[in-house]
Amino acid sequence: MTTSAAPRAEPAPLAFWFEFASTYTYVAAMRIEQSCADAGVPLRWKPFLLGPIFALQGWNDSHFNLNPRRGAYMWRDMERLTAKLHLPWRKPSVFPRNTIVPARVACAVADEAWCGEYVRRIFVANFGEDREVGERNVVASILTELGQDADAVLARAEAPEKRGTLRANTERAIELGIFGAPNCVVGDELFWGEESLDDAIDWSLAHSAAAGRV
Amino acid sequence: MTTSAAPRAEPAPLAFWFEFASTYTYVAAMRIEQSCADAGVPLRWKPFLLGPIFALQGWNDSHFNLNPRRGAYMWRDMERLTAKLHLPWRKPSVFPRNTIVPARVACAVADEAWCGEYVRRIFVANFGEDREVGERNVVASILTELGQDADAVLARAEAPEKRGTLRANTERAIELGIFGAPNCVVGDELFWGEESLDDAIDWSLAHSAAAGRV
Repeated sequence: MTTSAAPRAEPAPLAFWFEFASTYTYVAAMRIEQSCADAGVPLRWKPFLLGPIFALQGWNDSHFNLNPRRGAYMWRDMERLTAKLHLPWRKPSVFPRNTIVPARVACAVADEAWCGEYVRRIFVANFGEDREVGERNVVASILTELGQDADAVLARAEAPEKRGTLRANTERAIELGIFGAPNCVVGDELFWGEESLDDAIDWSLAHSAAAGRV
Repeated sequence: MTTSAAPRAEPAPLAFWFEFASTYTYVAAMRIEQSCADAGVPLRWKPFLLGPIFALQGWNDSHFNLNPRRGAYMWRDMERLTAKLHLPWRKPSVFPRNTIVPARVACAVADEAWCGEYVRRIFVANFGEDREVGERNVVASILTELGQDADAVLARAEAPEKRGTLRANTERAIELGIFGAPNCVVGDELFWGEESLDDAIDWSLAHSAAAGRV
């Protein structure tokens, strides 16, 4: 059953697979909702954890910490990118942060209309304000700021039947071939990196949901 | 001494640091000369070897081979990118190839007007035709095809006073903080990755040679 009689098939949904600890994901997360809306592409929020995926690759830390040459470039690149895009930037004093609490909340509210606003607010707190976004009270204050009942949302995120969603998402990310962040997944196609958002949106527009690619 | 009385200072030169074995460098190399010409940015060809730089990072092979999840994504991404950009693509049967011979030639002809044509021809042979571009006779046949005296060019590239240029370039790449390829360097700024070419050109336009950034 469709809600529109328009002849054009709906673009394939774009799943945005994100981790609140990831610097490049910050840049992508700030624009993904608007970019999808502009293109008419349905967006799905997919929080996951990079830790278990890094472990699969033999890493016990971010590769930006394990490889100082790669890390030095990333920090300079983030200064340039955030300046270019007029995004707040303050190099975090802890990297990567433990993001289980805010990610569990994202899992619980992924289908709410305000999820995008919540996601952007957590990312700005981490990378624009150097706040400890892994702490329950920081997440609670952000939820309150967004007009939500923080205790109720946190209770929902930590309820036994919801706690497993983040782990299930991470296992699904592994199956999808994800090795870093951010990622857009359209049908079977994985698009990695902040700079591939537009390619993912183009792929969605070219592969309608009706064509069975989702 | 300048050749023009135009008031605008000349854009800062853009040095393109490339390795013939690198897949993403293929994509970048095919358009860098035209993009710089369109923008009026002076281009410098800088061949180097990734092997010693990977060794610094503890790798004895391409990270695309060492990390199968990362590698699988790269091969699929190359299929998509080359299709989008209408570039020839045939997955190479050997990866990464030993590129010392063609890189030495690139060092020897870096200041010649036909260097760009040579660079693109070697990349297409490696990634569009699956040819053994590390072999002297393959490089010779490509030089001949370009209307050059292959024996004379190879002799020049392998002359004692020229053989050290590739090693010196690689040492300079290490000093510049290079950890992969392709790279554009404008003044002190490093831009890594096929998708950052346009940012590098914008940086060059914003930082004129007269401002002392080169």
